[in-house]
Amino acid sequence: MDFRLPDYKAPDFSVEPLASSPNVSTKTVEKDGVAPDNYHATTIFPEYFKINGTWVLAEKSRMDCVVVVKNEQELEVKEFRRLIKGEQVVVGRSENGEEGIYVYTDGFKNNGKFDECFVFRTGRSRESSFSMDYDRLYELLRHEKENGFIVWVLGPAVVFDYDSRCAMVSLINKGYVNAVLAGNALATHDLEGAIFKTALGQDIYHQSSCAKGHYHHIDVINRARQYDSLEEFVTAEGISDGIVHACIKNKVPLVLCGSIRDDGPLPGVISDVYQAQNKMREYTKQATTVIGMATQLHTIATGNMTPAYQVVNGRVRPVFIYSIDISEFAANKLRDRGTLEVTSIITNVQDFLVNLNRNL
Amino acid sequence: MDFRLPDYKAPDFSVEPLASSPNVSTKTVEKDGVAPDNYHATTIFPEYFKINGTWVLAEKSRMDCVVVVKNEQELEVKEFRRLIKGEQVVVGRSENGEEGIYVYTDGFKNNGKFDECFVFRTGRSRESSFSMDYDRLYELLRHEKENGFIVWVLGPAVVFDYDSRCAMVSLINKGYVNAVLAGNALATHDLEGAIFKTALGQDIYHQSSCAKGHYHHIDVINRARQYDSLEEFVTAEGISDGIVHACIKNKVPLVLCGSIRDDGPLPGVISDVYQAQNKMREYTKQATTVIGMATQLHTIATGNMTPAYQVVNGRVRPVFIYSIDISEFAANKLRDRGTLEVTSIITNVQDFLVNLNRNL
Amino acid sequence: MDFRLPDYKAPDFSVEPLASSPNVSTKTVEKDGVAPDNYHATTIFPEYFKINGTWVLAEKSRMDCVVVVKNEQELEVKEFRRLIKGEQVVVGRSENGEEGIYVYTDGFKNNGKFDECFVFRTGRSRESSFSMDYDRLYELLRHEKENGFIVWVLGPAVVFDYDSRCAMVSLINKGYVNAVLAGNALATHDLEGAIFKTALGQDIYHQSSCAKGHYHHIDVINRARQYDSLEEFVTAEGISDGIVHACIKNKVPLVLCGSIRDDGPLPGVISDVYQAQNKMREYTKQATTVIGMATQLHTIATGNMTPAYQVVNGRVRPVFIYSIDISEFAANKLRDRGTLEVTSIITNVQDFLVNLNRNL
Amino acid sequence: MDFRLPDYKAPDFSVEPLASSPNVSTKTVEKDGVAPDNYHATTIFPEYFKINGTWVLAEKSRMDCVVVVKNEQELEVKEFRRLIKGEQVVVGRSENGEEGIYVYTDGFKNNGKFDECFVFRTGRSRESSFSMDYDRLYELLRHEKENGFIVWVLGPAVVFDYDSRCAMVSLINKGYVNAVLAGNALATHDLEGAIFKTALGQDIYHQSSCAKGHYHHIDVINRARQYDSLEEFVTAEGISDGIVHACIKNKVPLVLCGSIRDDGPLPGVISDVYQAQNKMREYTKQATTVIGMATQLHTIATGNMTPAYQVVNGRVRPVFIYSIDISEFAANKLRDRGTLEVTSIITNVQDFLVNLNRNL
Repeated sequence: MDFRLPDYKAPDFSVEPLASSPNVSTKTVEKDGVAPDNYHATTIFPEYFKINGTWVLAEKSRMDCVVVVKNEQELEVKEFRRLIKGEQVVVGRSENGEEGIYVYTDGFKNNGKFDECFVFRTGRSRESSFSMDYDRLYELLRHEKENGFIVWVLGPAVVFDYDSRCAMVSLINKGYVNAVLAGNALATHDLEGAIFKTALGQDIYHQSSCAKGHYHHIDVINRARQYDSLEEFVTAEGISDGIVHACIKNKVPLVLCGSIRDDGPLPGVISDVYQAQNKMREYTKQATTVIGMATQLHTIATGNMTPAYQVVNGRVRPVFIYSIDISEFAANKLRDRGTLEVTSIITNVQDFLVNLNRNL
Repeated sequence: MDFRLPDYKAPDFSVEPLASSPNVSTKTVEKDGVAPDNYHATTIFPEYFKINGTWVLAEKSRMDCVVVVKNEQELEVKEFRRLIKGEQVVVGRSENGEEGIYVYTDGFKNNGKFDECFVFRTGRSRESSFSMDYDRLYELLRHEKENGFIVWVLGPAVVFDYDSRCAMVSLINKGYVNAVLAGNALATHDLEGAIFKTALGQDIYHQSSCAKGHYHHIDVINRARQYDSLEEFVTAEGISDGIVHACIKNKVPLVLCGSIRDDGPLPGVISDVYQAQNKMREYTKQATTVIGMATQLHTIATGNMTPAYQVVNGRVRPVFIYSIDISEFAANKLRDRGTLEVTSIITNVQDFLVNLNRNL
Repeated sequence: MDFRLPDYKAPDFSVEPLASSPNVSTKTVEKDGVAPDNYHATTIFPEYFKINGTWVLAEKSRMDCVVVVKNEQELEVKEFRRLIKGEQVVVGRSENGEEGIYVYTDGFKNNGKFDECFVFRTGRSRESSFSMDYDRLYELLRHEKENGFIVWVLGPAVVFDYDSRCAMVSLINKGYVNAVLAGNALATHDLEGAIFKTALGQDIYHQSSCAKGHYHHIDVINRARQYDSLEEFVTAEGISDGIVHACIKNKVPLVLCGSIRDDGPLPGVISDVYQAQNKMREYTKQATTVIGMATQLHTIATGNMTPAYQVVNGRVRPVFIYSIDISEFAANKLRDRGTLEVTSIITNVQDFLVNLNRNL
Repeated sequence: MDFRLPDYKAPDFSVEPLASSPNVSTKTVEKDGVAPDNYHATTIFPEYFKINGTWVLAEKSRMDCVVVVKNEQELEVKEFRRLIKGEQVVVGRSENGEEGIYVYTDGFKNNGKFDECFVFRTGRSRESSFSMDYDRLYELLRHEKENGFIVWVLGPAVVFDYDSRCAMVSLINKGYVNAVLAGNALATHDLEGAIFKTALGQDIYHQSSCAKGHYHHIDVINRARQYDSLEEFVTAEGISDGIVHACIKNKVPLVLCGSIRDDGPLPGVISDVYQAQNKMREYTKQATTVIGMATQLHTIATGNMTPAYQVVNGRVRPVFIYSIDISEFAANKLRDRGTLEVTSIITNVQDFLVNLNRNL
């Protein structure tokens, strides 16, 4: 296998204006959750901040956040709502080093095979050729299984179909899944599939609707709510197939966020969306590849909190993000965030998952 | 104006099997938030329950909930999560009266002009003729302004365009809006429009992007977070246009739900999705017309908690729901919930709002 | 393999009103291409006409045509434009036998396994479960390869991608393709793929655009136009891969219709759309399965000229039509024609073809 | 009204390499319909060719054609299929003047108000702000009514709705329409609307389907086919409303192209697609504004044969093209042809037409 991560070319801090950049300035947070005027907001790119004469890379970054300097040496990229009175926030809105802030967009450019693909990210539609994207994704996932952290973001459509639900379970069992981010609906319909073989009352293979099928999903939820966790529920009720079961069996973290559309919710669902963000970010902080499927809300939410790079074993590497959706509008929406790292594949996620599983 | 609400024909309880139906049975809630086995789940239709020999209509209903009998005479339609240990929940899954439960689907049938339109709800697409739907909606809203309660559900696309943002403000000022349900993004981009004339950094009329425009929405949020409420923020900063301002000025309740995609959030945003549902339902309990635009999540969430009928001044009347979206998939998704009351219009909400405002 | 065609239950002509139906009436065509008043127009269903006291089934039918009686015994289903002065056209618009015309919609009902799937044809969307549809299609195509006639209708997207182009070629080579209906663009881009490895100047695997790539498709057309046929062109230029080549090699008829969007056209393209219809119908008259992919125009055109049934070896059997498109609007448009026989699969045809080829 | 066309800045031919460019080379057509090797293909931009030492602008241009030099001084931009043995075709594929061919892309740049809008053509979606586009289009059409030639390209959706059909008729009557390009279906359903008040059997206002409504469109066609032209048909049958009637009454040319989906066809429909292209190009050769609505096929066909510029009264001016469709994929497809002149508006054409008519 010839898979190779693109090399990261660190900036040359010996040239001007970087060489003589001042240290960053900071201002103090006066009120919890409110940044000082002129705060610097992060992008998805690697950003360096000059502290005590040294350029420090912000790790575990994400966009649209502020940078807190701790102990005059450490950096933490924080959401506004998490700021605490007294913290020191980097200020300044230039990006070229003149205020000690350097936003570096060229780290992975001109780097051999993967580089090409960065070029052709524009204009993905149903008529784009996806053969190479599939082949690269197979290679990438084989690499990441051993060396990375693969975060999957699942919309409920994944479990509406028999084959795609099986394919996802198989990918979990094979070790290609390090975390699953989803909503109450994904888990509800997956458990409905396990107990009734239906989703919203319709057989996930035979397509037939059954009498009183509209009770299925609320019956599942109501039964689950007798327990304190999905783990207890799955064990107690002898559930033995599906994505929730596979995550539990393989100890893959499953983050379930609540939404205003939910019935229920199931036990374990996080009802506060900002706490949910915090939990999701625990995993995007580790992510080296993210695959979002059939959910605009969750995919964009996850994309927003995923940087274009991670530092793994002291080495800067890119994070690969895939956005799979049948709608160009949804799949491409995330891509607008930057030029670096999002690959959109426009198709039905059922076929995408079956393809993936067959080739991995 | 010849607008007339369709008459409601109450069921004839003197015929069998209704005449000799037993009283409903109930079971006791043993654990908070968990319904007893064999609970009855509500639909969107009028449902009658026989209590002490009398058929009682469930008011303020919504689908996929349970029915709690209070003091052996009152009914409350409740979400599972709101059940309290000791409450008496109606049990039984037949709908024809044989267990004292009667789901009545024919109340508004054969009722003159509005009836026709119920027939042709199927298969709405971009190629459906919408002229009559517009004309009826104009009539309906004029009627509801005086006699009803109009709930609007807004996606952020409403404020991305100058004309549609103005049109929505105008509708609020004219009295056609009794409540607005939306998310953090709608309010954020509306306030960005007021302060910077942009949405996500792009001029909402001239379409031009401006330098550092990506700071606009987080600057708005950060500035607002210095205050305890949007009311304070709007007043203190002298904001004088837009939807948030119009709601505050006209004392129209504005429910803002948080989501996992949010930056911020703005003050006043409800971060717990189930508390947000409770707040939304306060208004859908009063709704006689609901108009959902350009937001699949919020429109379906609202639709799920809106019944097909309300009792107004002792009279049962239909609730009209409109789902406006440019995607057939999104606009029609809500329609699948029942046959009775959803009108889908497939268009860009910008044009829809401009049309509406020009004709009202 | 347990594949079995559904049985056809012929009408019982011994019961009223069929038993005492009169013979059909006819009127004479007075002007070429114009039907007499009160002509009977065909549907997609089996239709019987009483002639000389005998009920005769119209074979090789299609919808929206008229029925010409020849020699007082034979029936020909003809487009209006093909009517010739003096022909005898069946008149009458009742369908229940009272005018000697019987439109029979129930022939394939209640027929075991395939019957079920007729039931669930409604409301196909990206979220429908397609696992069973795929499995049935694999079975069906294996059966049809030996016993039927499979007509494929191809949009140009089929050749924009390397893997799907290869998959289609493989299906032709394996014998699953009896005729291909397409337009000038499909053939042009397929030949561009053979000569330049590009489609519209973009590499169909590597996605890279090459210098002067916008000349590729017109260079291909211009070069081909030096020959009298695609067969000559393919031989003379040594073209050895792609769909056009595979059709020629396997003697699969390839009908190419011109369109107002065409450059060119290639040799062999039919420039008159009604002559093109005639040529297409040569093959739909034999079709037992039709698969339309990624072309609304050609798929609907073909669907319109395909009946719901064929008579094969004296036995009436259904015709199966599949409409594969990434847009619900396009894929479902054909389905509206009747309730009987169209299966919509909402996905990217690239994945559909790769799936099919892998499983056949 | 402050409408002003952008100025055209002619190239400066006194600078190198233009000053010392050689004359263009030509080669002779050896076979009808086949260009010589190394032919030069046209773009949508103004192109100059050096002949006898003088730079000559190709007028009445279109893309993907070749340039024939006549009498050593005149230029004709011709489709390959129209080439005649013996004609002299410009050869050479450089565009910078070095072979006497200069493709000039900057003529309308930096030209005040209209210029800005050229900048923001990228990434149109349902969430783009269209207020300014509407306002500019109103201004433009008022200008073009007096000074230009407005070609409309209509899909059948325009006549499926009562209000939009009326709006289009009104625009014709007011003088905003110089030519209409469409297909057999547009005219058929428009005439069905005039005779039966339906489209495909469904009332275009009341949405109701009527018994035997599926006969309507073929009845219309069959009745019309008794006449030699639509003019005769409209007069003889006393048709007094709709688009066909308005075109005839106002002597607006109506080009109807046949398609493989057609029943019929109506009299006057052009059955050969390349003859249809010739007829369409008669009008695009004069076009100064083109508005394509709800038809991907016809809009792209028309766009392909429309240049980015026209010479009017000796002055070079831009041609404005609008592509109106509810699907981003369709509306934007035309835009990919070049950067200069296509404005996509993503909405339902019903609303677009009603808006336009109300503001003009």
